Amino acid sequence: MANIHTERLRQFQQLLAENRIDGYLVTRREDQCFLTGYFMDGYHLLIGRKKAWALVPKMLHEQFQQVAPFYNAVATDTPLAAAHAIISAEGLRRLAFDPEAETYASGCALCRKGFAEKGGLAASLRETKLGAEIADIAKACKIAVKAFAKLKPEIKPGMTENQVRARLQYLMDCMGAQGPSFALIIGSGPNSALPHHSTSERKIRDNEALLLDFGCKYNNYCSDYTRTFFIGKPTDEFKKVHAIVQRSHDAGIKAVRAGAKCIAVDKVCRDLIAAEGYGDKFIHGTGHGLGLEIHEFPRLNQKCDATLKEGMAVTVEPGIYLHGNFGVRIEDTVLVTKTGCKILTR
Amino acid sequence: MANIHTERLRQFQQLLAENRIDGYLVTRREDQCFLTGYFMDGYHLLIGRKKAWALVPKMLHEQFQQVAPFYNAVATDTPLAAAHAIISAEGLRRLAFDPEAETYASGCALCRKGFAEKGGLAASLRETKLGAEIADIAKACKIAVKAFAKLKPEIKPGMTENQVRARLQYLMDCMGAQGPSFALIIGSGPNSALPHHSTSERKIRDNEALLLDFGCKYNNYCSDYTRTFFIGKPTDEFKKVHAIVQRSHDAGIKAVRAGAKCIAVDKVCRDLIAAEGYGDKFIHGTGHGLGLEIHEFPRLNQKCDATLKEGMAVTVEPGIYLHGNFGVRIEDTVLVTKTGCKILTR
Repeated sequence: MANIHTERLRQFQQLLAENRIDGYLVTRREDQCFLTGYFMDGYHLLIGRKKAWALVPKMLHEQFQQVAPFYNAVATDTPLAAAHAIISAEGLRRLAFDPEAETYASGCALCRKGFAEKGGLAASLRETKLGAEIADIAKACKIAVKAFAKLKPEIKPGMTENQVRARLQYLMDCMGAQGPSFALIIGSGPNSALPHHSTSERKIRDNEALLLDFGCKYNNYCSDYTRTFFIGKPTDEFKKVHAIVQRSHDAGIKAVRAGAKCIAVDKVCRDLIAAEGYGDKFIHGTGHGLGLEIHEFPRLNQKCDATLKEGMAVTVEPGIYLHGNFGVRIEDTVLVTKTGCKILTR
Repeated sequence: MANIHTERLRQFQQLLAENRIDGYLVTRREDQCFLTGYFMDGYHLLIGRKKAWALVPKMLHEQFQQVAPFYNAVATDTPLAAAHAIISAEGLRRLAFDPEAETYASGCALCRKGFAEKGGLAASLRETKLGAEIADIAKACKIAVKAFAKLKPEIKPGMTENQVRARLQYLMDCMGAQGPSFALIIGSGPNSALPHHSTSERKIRDNEALLLDFGCKYNNYCSDYTRTFFIGKPTDEFKKVHAIVQRSHDAGIKAVRAGAKCIAVDKVCRDLIAAEGYGDKFIHGTGHGLGLEIHEFPRLNQKCDATLKEGMAVTVEPGIYLHGNFGVRIEDTVLVTKTGCKILTR
């Protein structure tokens, strides 16, 4: 049973040993999926240095055992009581939880039971992706790209943004997607100038911009992809702005490599747009990590002090937004390599 | 601007006055949407007894102001610093946060800044729905029902569960849905015996059960609906089990009314199934509240001590699961009324 999840569990247990922790409670859904392969609300994991337990409601027990037979799965409707019984029986002494995953209420309850807070363990493993994870992200990216290629010639003035969204989702689902990786953004005309526009009933018109920012999940891993184009014959202003964003995007992609600072990649994209006079129209960060979640560590922005590592999957997505008129964003998901990056949305 | 969200904000401010709180930080996305109408990651609300502020990233500022002009919206990339500046300037003294919404880490940071924990305020308002909210849930239910009616005759042996899911989602999206309210469950044959089956590449076969548990979002509100039927000529065993679940479901619906205990509704459904000898095959609760989230207070199960109130939207969904063979679940979303309930998935 040496699969990606047994490997990830082994790495996590290694971290527990290094941090002298005997038992760790994992309650964030994505961390659980990372360590089991099973993505579902409503179960808990208790990880020891040598053994690992899953505390699973009766209705999920059979499925859990099928997906992750390398756990001791206990069917229970009182997961914390079951965890404490295991802790007693196994003599686990140093117990910890993730202060970023528990609610304040649940964290306080754990502290009263002798747990200490220790964050960042799962996060430190999740930031770089291994083979099977990379393959899943790459597949999610391929689906997005292929669906877009199929959709683009179908888009006609008169269709609503919601109709385009429905069709795009259907194309991705038919290609094997598990559903959207976030609420798909279809921004037409002036709506393209809102970076996180809520896709609406607005009808697409002739001679205006159309921005599509979307992605899907494949085997629980996300993709993220944005293209902006013009319905009809592009205006000179659109062509100019699109070309600037394209150059900023290309320069950002070129700057991505293991060892580069996130802040430096952002600066490359931002400086190029600022030099063209649109500095105040680029109103978000350049990109973000992604994996089991659509937004993960690191951020490629003006504040993130992190350094890119081989195996990180990040987006590069500069944009220019002209209020009331149009916006342009161009985004690819890339895999960081030793010497540069591999564009996965290609 | 007297809409549902200004009304909900006014009710929330009333609760602040009753609890002698001057400023409350709202960070749970669904609570924010409840109080603003704007569903989006990445912003914060600070609610005072008379005024209300939104701390919004630059890239969301324009949209936020369009959707919720009754807030003082501050464009900021440092929301907590901005909140503290407002707290100082306005002289807000008694500050509180929701211990179920903040992470342990963020809750501890707020405690160090003089905030106290006070949970349940938004939850107490969200448990009963008002006019516009009921209309949105009803619309989400209608879409699910209509999509199912259109889909059912299209389902043929040889289609995969994923293909059925893709088609069902597309039909709902074309009817105005905003996307799924949860990961749609399409369980064929033995997969129907797994209550939370993960929809798969399994091909539907002739002469087996098919369970569809699904819903959509409309204007951010959820629906939830399950039907189980047989592909081909139903076996006697399927007919028998389906009839028992149907009677359990119908008895549960009859038991729902304002003033009924959740535990009593569960008991009606459970006793009926147990009397037929399938008590140990009904391995989950009878239902749950829903609204902006697919699972909300209250739960209709063997533990929830709550009493149903007029205006609650809940599901009734008993089931029988025969391991390795088939399962049957029948679910409707209903609105609790003074004298009974109204089935919204009809």
